[in-house]
Amino acid sequence: MGNLVNVAVDGMGGDNAPGEIVKGAVDAVKVNDGVKVYLTGTKETIEAELGKYEYPRDRVEVVPTTEIIEMGESPVMAIRKKRDSSLVVALNLVKDGKCDAFVSAGSTGAVLAGGQLLVGRIRGVERPPLAPLIPNAHGVSLLVDCGANVDARATHLVQFAKMGSAYMKYAMGVDDPRVALLNIGTEEEKGNALVKETYPLLKASTDINFIGSIEAREIPEGAADVIVCDAFAGNIALKMYEGVAKVLLSKMKEVMMQNLKTKLGALLIKDSLKKTLKDFDATQYGGAPLLGLKGLVVKTHGSAKAGEVRNSIIQCITFKEQDVNGKIKQYLDL
Amino acid sequence: MGNLVNVAVDGMGGDNAPGEIVKGAVDAVKVNDGVKVYLTGTKETIEAELGKYEYPRDRVEVVPTTEIIEMGESPVMAIRKKRDSSLVVALNLVKDGKCDAFVSAGSTGAVLAGGQLLVGRIRGVERPPLAPLIPNAHGVSLLVDCGANVDARATHLVQFAKMGSAYMKYAMGVDDPRVALLNIGTEEEKGNALVKETYPLLKASTDINFIGSIEAREIPEGAADVIVCDAFAGNIALKMYEGVAKVLLSKMKEVMMQNLKTKLGALLIKDSLKKTLKDFDATQYGGAPLLGLKGLVVKTHGSAKAGEVRNSIIQCITFKEQDVNGKIKQYLDL
Repeated sequence: MGNLVNVAVDGMGGDNAPGEIVKGAVDAVKVNDGVKVYLTGTKETIEAELGKYEYPRDRVEVVPTTEIIEMGESPVMAIRKKRDSSLVVALNLVKDGKCDAFVSAGSTGAVLAGGQLLVGRIRGVERPPLAPLIPNAHGVSLLVDCGANVDARATHLVQFAKMGSAYMKYAMGVDDPRVALLNIGTEEEKGNALVKETYPLLKASTDINFIGSIEAREIPEGAADVIVCDAFAGNIALKMYEGVAKVLLSKMKEVMMQNLKTKLGALLIKDSLKKTLKDFDATQYGGAPLLGLKGLVVKTHGSAKAGEVRNSIIQCITFKEQDVNGKIKQYLDL
Repeated sequence: MGNLVNVAVDGMGGDNAPGEIVKGAVDAVKVNDGVKVYLTGTKETIEAELGKYEYPRDRVEVVPTTEIIEMGESPVMAIRKKRDSSLVVALNLVKDGKCDAFVSAGSTGAVLAGGQLLVGRIRGVERPPLAPLIPNAHGVSLLVDCGANVDARATHLVQFAKMGSAYMKYAMGVDDPRVALLNIGTEEEKGNALVKETYPLLKASTDINFIGSIEAREIPEGAADVIVCDAFAGNIALKMYEGVAKVLLSKMKEVMMQNLKTKLGALLIKDSLKKTLKDFDATQYGGAPLLGLKGLVVKTHGSAKAGEVRNSIIQCITFKEQDVNGKIKQYLDL
């Protein structure tokens, strides 16, 4: 039991809490022997949800809390004032070394602020970026940074490139990950002031596999494994990716439900379609890690269901087993 | 004949020039009586292409040129040195007042540089933005700016909002167009330095219908008619939009061609699917106008086929008839 990976899960965060969060936690300990979950939240509510399932009881522990951070609250204020919230208590389990990792579907702002204020940065890391994995035509890439730290500096982006390389290599098993700078053209002289300042610094970094600039259109094609950008650009790329996919797929659904003929057609391609759509489902990879903190902090979608929560918990195992934080320090020469 | 709209078309620019460009020009004059096209390019080549079609000969005029600007060239240098290129000669037709509008599928950089250097800005316009139309779930929105002018200032973005409103209202017939600021959250305090500085200025502009910030994911949903951003952010949003759509549609095609069963299914939904995909085809609206110049300059995709070229030429008619440039001056108080 000494080798268990301990994951603190915010039981009350997200649109589908606590039902889907608890189900995800139960599923995780059922499919993987090596993980123990500490579920924070209102005791009766969490226990009522747990009561619905059969699972190894010694690997799910309820940590009772009395407060909940809501989506609209000011993140920093909420972290400071609601000391007994499910989110703060779960983060403190990581801070105190009782847990290795933290997973929440709660407010992004509160997770980012809480991660930095409570778990804390690795000494030498200037900014911890939020790094979601996004599926592409051939696999998955890491988009660093999509967090709340806008107006980044070139030195931040260089650290993002290194932390992203460590994550893709050791947590995702990508050999010699290709790092690209998100830009509006591939020529070296293109870009805004930040990109122009960052480009030569990345080019000079011998410890990463920098392949130059890429345009946003190349991301879904799978042109790079780690895509480096400031959080404003990253957020736009990520949200546009999600928005277009959502609208196109809902239009496809409309097409297929249009009449009897199209419904029959839909029936014939259904199985084949499902498999393809699954490849493009970001939730299969779990949540987005906040890189460069002393422990692992993972943010899942606010709308996360049990499957995404389970995958996010499982994701923490590789992170610990591969000592990704140790590798991040090596990459950053810390 | 005095009321003809005269459009200068760069016959040699783009991946499919001159074949598709010439065909698009011929199609335009055939479907619309009110337009005359001046086709610039190598005389023999253009005439050989024209020889393939029947069309009203008095409304297509060949303007012979001897040089071509290639995709890789430095835009400003190319404009200055290649005075007898198809692009420069066509722009000069607008500058000299012989033509009302210019259409090219050539190098974006050269079109942007040439538009500013040769046609020139309306006095008082700080920066002419490139403003592509992108289809959404309910119609189409204008994304201003997607050009080459990165590192914009707040006052530029306010002008973009006004010029974009004039364009959507008078060229596209959208009543009281909703203007939004592209941001990473909808709260007023969110965003990078540029967005924070721009927000109150837009809020204070009484002549536009400013609805606040939107996230990129809301663009394909159709949350705004005019989306204002700096060219770096706009370029990322636009290219990601195009990239995701391309990859998803090609995956759908793979799904449908997988085996006999799926091929039969595809056959049944084909008609219904085609109609929906047409709604999402940006080329139906023509090219992207470069707003704020003394004449109309339109950039089509480098890969434009005859249909997009034709639509871009037709688009110029409304622009002139509705006196969009006059309206832009009104909106900007010039």
